[in-house]
Amino acid sequence: MPQISTRGTQMPSSPIRKLAPLAEQAKQRGVHVYHLNIGQPDLPTPQVALDAMKGIDRKILEYSPSQGYRSYREKLVGYYDKYNIKLTPDDIIITSGGSEAVLFAFLSCLNPGDEIIVPEPAYANYMAFAISAGAIIRTIATTIEEGFSLPKVEKFEELINERTRAILICNPNNPTGYLYTRREMNQIRDLVKKYDLYLFSDEVYREFIYTGSPYISACHLEGIENNVVLIDSVSKRYSECGIRIGALITKNKQVRQAVMKFCQARLSPPLIGQVIAEASLDTPEDYMRDIYDEYVERRKCLIDGLNRIPGVYSPIPMGAFYTVAKLPVDDAEKFCAWCLEEFSYEGATVMMAPAAGFYTTPGAGRNQVRIAYVLKKEDLMQALVVLKKALEAYPGRCE
Amino acid sequence: MPQISTRGTQMPSSPIRKLAPLAEQAKQRGVHVYHLNIGQPDLPTPQVALDAMKGIDRKILEYSPSQGYRSYREKLVGYYDKYNIKLTPDDIIITSGGSEAVLFAFLSCLNPGDEIIVPEPAYANYMAFAISAGAIIRTIATTIEEGFSLPKVEKFEELINERTRAILICNPNNPTGYLYTRREMNQIRDLVKKYDLYLFSDEVYREFIYTGSPYISACHLEGIENNVVLIDSVSKRYSECGIRIGALITKNKQVRQAVMKFCQARLSPPLIGQVIAEASLDTPEDYMRDIYDEYVERRKCLIDGLNRIPGVYSPIPMGAFYTVAKLPVDDAEKFCAWCLEEFSYEGATVMMAPAAGFYTTPGAGRNQVRIAYVLKKEDLMQALVVLKKALEAYPGRCE
Repeated sequence: MPQISTRGTQMPSSPIRKLAPLAEQAKQRGVHVYHLNIGQPDLPTPQVALDAMKGIDRKILEYSPSQGYRSYREKLVGYYDKYNIKLTPDDIIITSGGSEAVLFAFLSCLNPGDEIIVPEPAYANYMAFAISAGAIIRTIATTIEEGFSLPKVEKFEELINERTRAILICNPNNPTGYLYTRREMNQIRDLVKKYDLYLFSDEVYREFIYTGSPYISACHLEGIENNVVLIDSVSKRYSECGIRIGALITKNKQVRQAVMKFCQARLSPPLIGQVIAEASLDTPEDYMRDIYDEYVERRKCLIDGLNRIPGVYSPIPMGAFYTVAKLPVDDAEKFCAWCLEEFSYEGATVMMAPAAGFYTTPGAGRNQVRIAYVLKKEDLMQALVVLKKALEAYPGRCE
Repeated sequence: MPQISTRGTQMPSSPIRKLAPLAEQAKQRGVHVYHLNIGQPDLPTPQVALDAMKGIDRKILEYSPSQGYRSYREKLVGYYDKYNIKLTPDDIIITSGGSEAVLFAFLSCLNPGDEIIVPEPAYANYMAFAISAGAIIRTIATTIEEGFSLPKVEKFEELINERTRAILICNPNNPTGYLYTRREMNQIRDLVKKYDLYLFSDEVYREFIYTGSPYISACHLEGIENNVVLIDSVSKRYSECGIRIGALITKNKQVRQAVMKFCQARLSPPLIGQVIAEASLDTPEDYMRDIYDEYVERRKCLIDGLNRIPGVYSPIPMGAFYTVAKLPVDDAEKFCAWCLEEFSYEGATVMMAPAAGFYTTPGAGRNQVRIAYVLKKEDLMQALVVLKKALEAYPGRCE
């Protein structure tokens, strides 16, 4: 029997996946599981998007252009303009989710052995795409104590060597909810310029910024236009995770040409998803405001609630719909498994993502969890009660 | 400005893409272009599939499972059973088109530098996915004179070395329409067994077999169950190229586990496409028969017509909806460009795919084109007239 590839063995298995069967078993025992672990918004997809799907009147569900429909790309230009990101339709390549955009960015820009600097904790799948492309992720630590702010320039420069080719950020951040400040973005710009690096910037949560702080896109940074590759997706923005529509955006023509070859090889992005995504650009303002208000409330509810539980600490996330919280436990992976296997309070328990999966530094984030606030407020409040009780009962508790 | 990756420069550009702007220009001059170059069926998607799309009554277009919906995989078991391919739902992984299945098969099974033996001419994008995965395609020649039948075992063994890890076939074949015989499939089985290779088998055209010859799937071959990775797609079967639903199928559990890690990284295959593909399994028999009859007629019309043009030769394709034909020209790439740039007959011209793009051997297929029969019969007949006239007028004609 032939062996699988080295890549295949190196690919990370998310710690959530280890917990999934435990959650199933808990449900089979009749225990209600509050899913604080997922990034799937529970809010409805805009009606205008659902209507567009039902209104599709094609006789043949045919290939769309490899770059994506021009009508959609033209309309996206107006969307980005509202964020003061100035594009032409040619700058935009439609992908199968933001995931494909990350993969194609890596395949097009990086050679095997090339290094990418990523602040950690970071979205775990970046690692998977790096392994797919043979690239190496070098993480730079940010800490819960400092609210996950970026380390000084010197820390970056310690990591930069002749194989460093890119910096990758997620802004607003998954998993921390951190929003990079203007000072931090300028610091990144200076590094990118000085060492002629790519800046891969995943900004899929730009709609979800809850403070008065400005959103500084990588596309706003002057003088590095040819270094920036923006990763985007409609998944979170419109509760459309299932349609698999993302985008790779860059002013760098050479990169676009290379990316287009990978796009042509996979023929086309999803047709129906594009129709839905294009229609979603006409989502009424009040839908977006309602969604926003909802997340603002949930965030307040969750963060206040977490910080009221003895021994728990969560910084206040500025964006996205996650927070990374510190728990008074020996090992968050064990605690999360214990919650599902051995604990329930009034017939319910909680499922959270152990944060270790978002770090590459061994031991980092060991007593942290990522909590998503994609449940309605009443459920979040109930989940907080369950979490409090679980921490009181957990045998591996430590302050 | 940072450089693109070596992979990015190595990725092939299809010769069709060079012709695309010429076709656009021809249309702008008012010339009608008969598209003999494409693999997009013109036949309607089954009504049951379109109805399923319109009937989707979800409020949230959410992630589907990374492996694909279980209900769809369960139903696929019955579909494959009709072809005497015995599967369980766990053997099936739903992908974003057959393209993603090929890429994930390569990433999961092959290390950089590993070699895949592929009979040429071959589907051009295999090369692109091999480059993406750092694998190397070694082609084994088949010739139009021998009707593209497989060479003897010795020819394969000449190519096999310690880096050979896989054989890749497309059956029925794109671009040649060739269907592998039982003898040929047994020969492949023996090689796979002897050298413990993977057998990647792309069988997306199994519905389109026009002779009495049996369809021998790689999954029918005994004793190599753990070596076979089947690539599939609903694109051609139901005229659903745009929904991007394929499958990777294998009995090899280790391979499935590795593939699943790549699937989990990209989160999920398209949700709506899966709903449509699942409904398509209920396509009435008479739809499939009508489609089949239509292709049978077109094939006869095209092949008869081609072989009646002086100097043109096409073998009789046994399956799919393509043929590779030899033309009396110096260089088919030049001829195809000339047809679009300088020729028209009664206001029309033809666009064909130069076959050189399907060969890796330098010079191979230079006077050949791939012609798809995805136009209706009247258009095919008119296109044949235009082709005949073009060959008469072409200055680079040679017998």
